[in-house]
Amino acid sequence: MINIVILGGGNVAYHLTNALLQNNAVNVVQVYNRNLENIKCFKKSTLVTDNLSKLKEADIYILAVSDNAIAQLSSTLNLKNKLVVHTSGSMAMDELKSISNKGVFYMLQTFSKERKIDFSSVPVCIEAETEKDLMLLETLATSISKNCYLINSNQRKSLHVAAVFVNNFVNHLYHIGNEICEENNVPFEILLPLIQETANKITTLTPFKAQTGPAIRNDTKTIEKHKAILTKNQQEIYTLLTKSICNTYEEKL
Amino acid sequence: MINIVILGGGNVAYHLTNALLQNNAVNVVQVYNRNLENIKCFKKSTLVTDNLSKLKEADIYILAVSDNAIAQLSSTLNLKNKLVVHTSGSMAMDELKSISNKGVFYMLQTFSKERKIDFSSVPVCIEAETEKDLMLLETLATSISKNCYLINSNQRKSLHVAAVFVNNFVNHLYHIGNEICEENNVPFEILLPLIQETANKITTLTPFKAQTGPAIRNDTKTIEKHKAILTKNQQEIYTLLTKSICNTYEEKL
Repeated sequence: MINIVILGGGNVAYHLTNALLQNNAVNVVQVYNRNLENIKCFKKSTLVTDNLSKLKEADIYILAVSDNAIAQLSSTLNLKNKLVVHTSGSMAMDELKSISNKGVFYMLQTFSKERKIDFSSVPVCIEAETEKDLMLLETLATSISKNCYLINSNQRKSLHVAAVFVNNFVNHLYHIGNEICEENNVPFEILLPLIQETANKITTLTPFKAQTGPAIRNDTKTIEKHKAILTKNQQEIYTLLTKSICNTYEEKL
Repeated sequence: MINIVILGGGNVAYHLTNALLQNNAVNVVQVYNRNLENIKCFKKSTLVTDNLSKLKEADIYILAVSDNAIAQLSSTLNLKNKLVVHTSGSMAMDELKSISNKGVFYMLQTFSKERKIDFSSVPVCIEAETEKDLMLLETLATSISKNCYLINSNQRKSLHVAAVFVNNFVNHLYHIGNEICEENNVPFEILLPLIQETANKITTLTPFKAQTGPAIRNDTKTIEKHKAILTKNQQEIYTLLTKSICNTYEEKL
């Protein structure tokens, strides 16, 4: 049984705590947050505290806090011979300033309080200083997910950037699609099957091979017609992405 | 029973012919293409021809050809009192130059020969000149899909642009994500659950509400760190989309 203390009150902390409370291989000893309001929902299932000097004994302390809080919070922890990990995609392991052993437990998923997450398919990227700690993190990771990866700080940094493209930026393109629909009185729901198929397609084809549309065909007639009905901001994005697609296939085909 | 002739040998013609051949409400009388090679696979199931003067009698002639071929091909058809439709998202109905009745049968999906399509969820956007033809197209549409929409040429044009954003451009962002992974020796498959969840999330939240990431938080520290490891082209796209996200939420929050 792995004993765990979770520190944080945001979306990642919330979903992770929920998942670990339901996990028989793990004992959530305590949840800490600087204000109790965000974690009071766990009161019935475990100990909660807003006092760092009252942290309980555990094997792993998981800092599921914002990037900017990692250095400061970890520096105040006086936990010798314990493993302290953060959950950030963009921060290196040595951002942790505790005297403890260090590690990373990065769950590559988008977390919103409103959406329930199936952890079994969430990739967990782990990193640690020692083989022993790595094995401990692997045991924890595989107890909640079937996808566990050993990823060092540099690799994780690039994964995090790639995630911004395929998640944050993709969602913004969905938003622009929605905007265009609203401006023209077309229900956005018509696009949902296409959005699904676009995401499914790349499980069997590379994105390079899955590309379709006027840009890859260099269909300048359609491209000009499209631009004519867009707002300035939409036009700018349309032009840049079209250029990027053209360049990609010009070079490589 | 609706009698149909399909004209075309591309991806849309291929998938539509396959779907209609399996459909009991429809009789595929004939498939035409200017070269027989692309349609010889249908030889066992229906008549095939490369001779326009030998088109059979039917209720609907579906031109599933490239945008640029619609005007020319339709102008050579001598089909009085028949319904001739095209399947293009970006072309107006009056792009059809036949003496026949005109209509549009636009299936909003991305078609690749390698991927089997479940037509039952493909949205079909129909348009026609007369109420009678509209009903005929509606009967055809609902026989293959549960999603049929009446969409005029202007609405369809904007839908088509929106589809470029949520499909073609989104796929290109997947490609860039893949590129970043390859450059840094990280398996792209780690990103697939995130990609899926991003597409699923907007079935219950608007894309506006689903947005996360450094841009919406205006987290300039992370943004600068990200840019530092990108190529020039990737940087340009990162900068523009980040700016667009910032502007979207500055104005509206």
